[in-house]
Amino acid sequence: MFGCLVAGRLVQAAPQQVAEDKFVFDLPDYENINHVVVFMLGTIPFPDGMGGSVYFCYPDQSGMAVWQLLGFVTNEKPSAIFKISGLKSGKGSQHPFGAMNLPQTPTVAQIGISVELLESLAQQTPVASAAVSSVDSFTEFTQKMLDNFYNFASSFAVTQAQMTPNPSEAFIPANVVLKW
Amino acid sequence: MFGCLVAGRLVQAAPQQVAEDKFVFDLPDYENINHVVVFMLGTIPFPDGMGGSVYFCYPDQSGMAVWQLLGFVTNEKPSAIFKISGLKSGKGSQHPFGAMNLPQTPTVAQIGISVELLESLAQQTPVASAAVSSVDSFTEFTQKMLDNFYNFASSFAVTQAQMTPNPSEAFIPANVVLKW
Repeated sequence: MFGCLVAGRLVQAAPQQVAEDKFVFDLPDYENINHVVVFMLGTIPFPDGMGGSVYFCYPDQSGMAVWQLLGFVTNEKPSAIFKISGLKSGKGSQHPFGAMNLPQTPTVAQIGISVELLESLAQQTPVASAAVSSVDSFTEFTQKMLDNFYNFASSFAVTQAQMTPNPSEAFIPANVVLKW
Repeated sequence: MFGCLVAGRLVQAAPQQVAEDKFVFDLPDYENINHVVVFMLGTIPFPDGMGGSVYFCYPDQSGMAVWQLLGFVTNEKPSAIFKISGLKSGKGSQHPFGAMNLPQTPTVAQIGISVELLESLAQQTPVASAAVSSVDSFTEFTQKMLDNFYNFASSFAVTQAQMTPNPSEAFIPANVVLKW
């Protein structure tokens, strides 16, 4: 379902499946990695309403796994380039790989992909420095936030027939959000 | 043999083979592309002493194909990320796709891969702005230039037995170049 490519190295297309909805690629010699590409192979799409959160995991000085959220892949955006070279001193983020107990090797990092509801992804904020370059990162990040907001907002969309009568509650037409 | 991935889109793994040693991927809607990843699938390596030069081709205002050298893939460096968003107004470079007469469509660009001798690749200089980010680009470009220089220089390497007697000609031991 997923492929992973470290810039300069051979592509990997066979992640370790550590849970029904969780996939892990090993990144040997991660200190010498700048960019990682994560992509869907195009064979199996995500189930409707689902997408993947992409995490970078590396061992800290005491050998504990630090997980950082890089971003997302979805059926609509089935690939992404992440810059991991600046992340090795950052703080970990909340992550869904806690129960996995993946063995940590000092020179091996991991890319973890967790298949989750799009609504859940929309509420997660990737580390900003993981985006590929400053200009793109800003554009892409802003676009992603807007997309997230639209997905998030439209998950609450109702038709007038579904509205509970409450004249003081304001509604925004969904196509206004989409156009914006 | 090759794959091509536009960041954000689905991977392509079936280039059009336009000559025995030349492969082309179409990039629809290229105006909205920032980064392209070119990689070997890992199935068939280059023949010994061969590698691939990677070109970006886009139609200029009059519909003529402009080709720009992005960089290289080799068995030792089987993947690379290129930034093409800054290239659309640049000048074309010499390229080996002249006789191909690839049809140009206004919104479709191409990635062309030409399989050539490593010695020939070493004498080609990619457009500097195609490297992924300014810092990496400099490091990678410098490294590439050094690699190119080493490959280029070592193609002239001789042993003392092969030297034509000429006491005024200076020689540099090959391992000095390699260490540098």
